[in-house]
Amino acid sequence: MERVQLANELSFSRIVHGMWRLDKWQYDKEKALEFIESCMDIGITTFDHADIYGNYSVEELFGQSLALKPSIRQKIELVTKCGIKLISKNRPEHKIKYYDTSKEHIVLSVENSLKNFQTDYLDVLLIHRPDPMMNPSEVAEAFYKLKKEGKVRAFGVSNFLPSQFKLLNAYLDDPLVTNQIEISATYLDHFGNGTIEQCQYEKIAPMAWSPLGGGAILTSDEEKMIRVRKVLNKIKDEIGAVSIDQVLYTWLLTHPSKIMPIVGSGKMERVIAAVKSLELTMTRQQWFEIFEASRGREVD
Amino acid sequence: MERVQLANELSFSRIVHGMWRLDKWQYDKEKALEFIESCMDIGITTFDHADIYGNYSVEELFGQSLALKPSIRQKIELVTKCGIKLISKNRPEHKIKYYDTSKEHIVLSVENSLKNFQTDYLDVLLIHRPDPMMNPSEVAEAFYKLKKEGKVRAFGVSNFLPSQFKLLNAYLDDPLVTNQIEISATYLDHFGNGTIEQCQYEKIAPMAWSPLGGGAILTSDEEKMIRVRKVLNKIKDEIGAVSIDQVLYTWLLTHPSKIMPIVGSGKMERVIAAVKSLELTMTRQQWFEIFEASRGREVD
Amino acid sequence: MERVQLANELSFSRIVHGMWRLDKWQYDKEKALEFIESCMDIGITTFDHADIYGNYSVEELFGQSLALKPSIRQKIELVTKCGIKLISKNRPEHKIKYYDTSKEHIVLSVENSLKNFQTDYLDVLLIHRPDPMMNPSEVAEAFYKLKKEGKVRAFGVSNFLPSQFKLLNAYLDDPLVTNQIEISATYLDHFGNGTIEQCQYEKIAPMAWSPLGGGAILTSDEEKMIRVRKVLNKIKDEIGAVSIDQVLYTWLLTHPSKIMPIVGSGKMERVIAAVKSLELTMTRQQWFEIFEASRGREVD
Repeated sequence: MERVQLANELSFSRIVHGMWRLDKWQYDKEKALEFIESCMDIGITTFDHADIYGNYSVEELFGQSLALKPSIRQKIELVTKCGIKLISKNRPEHKIKYYDTSKEHIVLSVENSLKNFQTDYLDVLLIHRPDPMMNPSEVAEAFYKLKKEGKVRAFGVSNFLPSQFKLLNAYLDDPLVTNQIEISATYLDHFGNGTIEQCQYEKIAPMAWSPLGGGAILTSDEEKMIRVRKVLNKIKDEIGAVSIDQVLYTWLLTHPSKIMPIVGSGKMERVIAAVKSLELTMTRQQWFEIFEASRGREVD
Repeated sequence: MERVQLANELSFSRIVHGMWRLDKWQYDKEKALEFIESCMDIGITTFDHADIYGNYSVEELFGQSLALKPSIRQKIELVTKCGIKLISKNRPEHKIKYYDTSKEHIVLSVENSLKNFQTDYLDVLLIHRPDPMMNPSEVAEAFYKLKKEGKVRAFGVSNFLPSQFKLLNAYLDDPLVTNQIEISATYLDHFGNGTIEQCQYEKIAPMAWSPLGGGAILTSDEEKMIRVRKVLNKIKDEIGAVSIDQVLYTWLLTHPSKIMPIVGSGKMERVIAAVKSLELTMTRQQWFEIFEASRGREVD
Repeated sequence: MERVQLANELSFSRIVHGMWRLDKWQYDKEKALEFIESCMDIGITTFDHADIYGNYSVEELFGQSLALKPSIRQKIELVTKCGIKLISKNRPEHKIKYYDTSKEHIVLSVENSLKNFQTDYLDVLLIHRPDPMMNPSEVAEAFYKLKKEGKVRAFGVSNFLPSQFKLLNAYLDDPLVTNQIEISATYLDHFGNGTIEQCQYEKIAPMAWSPLGGGAILTSDEEKMIRVRKVLNKIKDEIGAVSIDQVLYTWLLTHPSKIMPIVGSGKMERVIAAVKSLELTMTRQQWFEIFEASRGREVD
């Protein structure tokens, strides 16, 4: 599979798998290992996590599978996140949902993630949300320490707007390697707020969460969704896709910013379909048909 | 007439003429030539076009006039644009309106414009609209090729927001020379979104399309228009203008960013009136009276 | 008291006093002098003014107090502003409220401020509002002249958005030393528009005007204010504050951008309470409880 270079000696598979819902799939660790290896068989080597996924449980589940076959670790890229504190029975000290990008929390969170994954390094750590209380010096200190100790190879962010990205980047020795953002044919905000342009300016590839728009496209009877679905179905036939999913992935993959979609499904056939989107192409005219259906009016 | 330096050995007349509606004036080519020469007589040497004006017909009409007197070509600056694809009987392959800033399209569009104008170079080529699918590397390649071949002397953009301008500029050897934006006493958006500040930061002069606000100011009974019209009439008398048009031009010309208004009229007397605005002055207080009438409240 | 370094040999007290309403307190000059000295006794050395405060009267009142004890001048930092022109019987030539950042007006305004204060230098001059008619070259010339003549030691702005700050800063030899903005637990706009991030990026500390949100928090029965007040009262007890005011100051002081709150009260006990906030601390969780109560929903 096509790979995207993020830094020296660090690349991601163009299609990333996201483990957000791993705890929902009722996979035991053998089944999860099998799933991971099936992903690897079709070229997906990058797995996206966050400390909070599955109410702070997903990293550990994934780690238990890895432990069944430790040789896998060197063949994959582990991405995880920190910075959100959830109300959770697993974190009784949290009275509200809030953010924490203190040096102390970042370092502790990584150490906890390493334990969960039963590994001694993360490939990429992302700050999960822009924190209005962020002290960029502190974040830089945490990143420096974690890198020096070999615990994290590279750093990125998620959901950062341009001013937030620019701020943090200015405090770091090694530039941020990605911004993981919500972007899909039905969620166009980042085309209008400078985020995509910033990725292209900084020459980093964004990761796309919710690349299918959360599934509403398949079922919603909202006017916008009906309108987009109709166009997706038309273009599905035109480009030889087997499903609307593939059209949605192709729409992202066609964009010149080298978007890396995060596939969130636990069903192997849907993951395979996503990967096969890499073989499809779409004309600019088709891309804009979808874009215009989504925004509800033609371009100016 | 005052001239605005855009690059080495490239300047525009402060007042630009816009040929957007040339096809509507029912001028034969002799009449059009006469009109062009009348513009030149009063100092207007810069003529603004786009591939799509007049449903892809205006460049050719203009070129036919130029062909009657080829010596004019060296004395004027030809500006045109590309990047929009219109639904048009002249472009049956377009099923929807969309943007195309691929290298292939930019190069082809310029070659077509050169043919239309019956010339071998454009002074400035603008990308007509910010394209969410823009690959800045491709645009840079197209610009490099066109410049090297002598087909275009300099490049700019139109309707670009700051993040879009900054992105493209970063990929170019020669910086963008202008941003053609909608700006007038009744259209203030670019005072609030960083675009004017960016022009001043980059030390480029913006071109103003629809500098009179599209004519609604003369006739509309919208509350805002009535309010602005009243102030314009008052200031018309105070500054010795002969028409509201002149007040609107003076309002733009007074701004320190060296806005170049694009006069779109085919009536010579209105073009003359626009040029004569260069002799008028307006105090800051008068400028703000208009500004505040337009936004509907005093400054903070 | 903690001091904030703004430039070489120029620092502010972390808590600033704002003289906005000096004319309302019915202090004669002896009483005002006593008030100033009481501020100094608790470490406040920085006094914030504007030419227009008290309908163009406050600077002079303050200057008359200073004149009673000229030795004070060296021990304080005088901050004032220019650029707004008010409708006022003291300025009959103003027909409307507008902005003026011409070189001429800036220089004249400073000379007038110096006369009012009966001093020969200002510590910091701020441009009061971003002026859509600003010519950054002219502002730079004015600043250069005033600095060279020893009339102003350093320059800043107030209420500037990032694009405006960046523009002016690019034209100056000495960078802007602060941006005085409206920011408080009930006014969060600058957390969302890049202004706070820019301060951190430029490594300047913002000054906060209306740090208590204008007092509405104490009395308003608006839903938002009731919600925030409840949380403030809870946290008041948790952190050992004596008043909601102190919680509001602590909320600002806890932020890593080193916000300098401008205390606007003429009552010494309230000023003392503000200064004592410097001894209080607040956890991130408490900070976010207030933040979330103010925005009306938890973080994403």
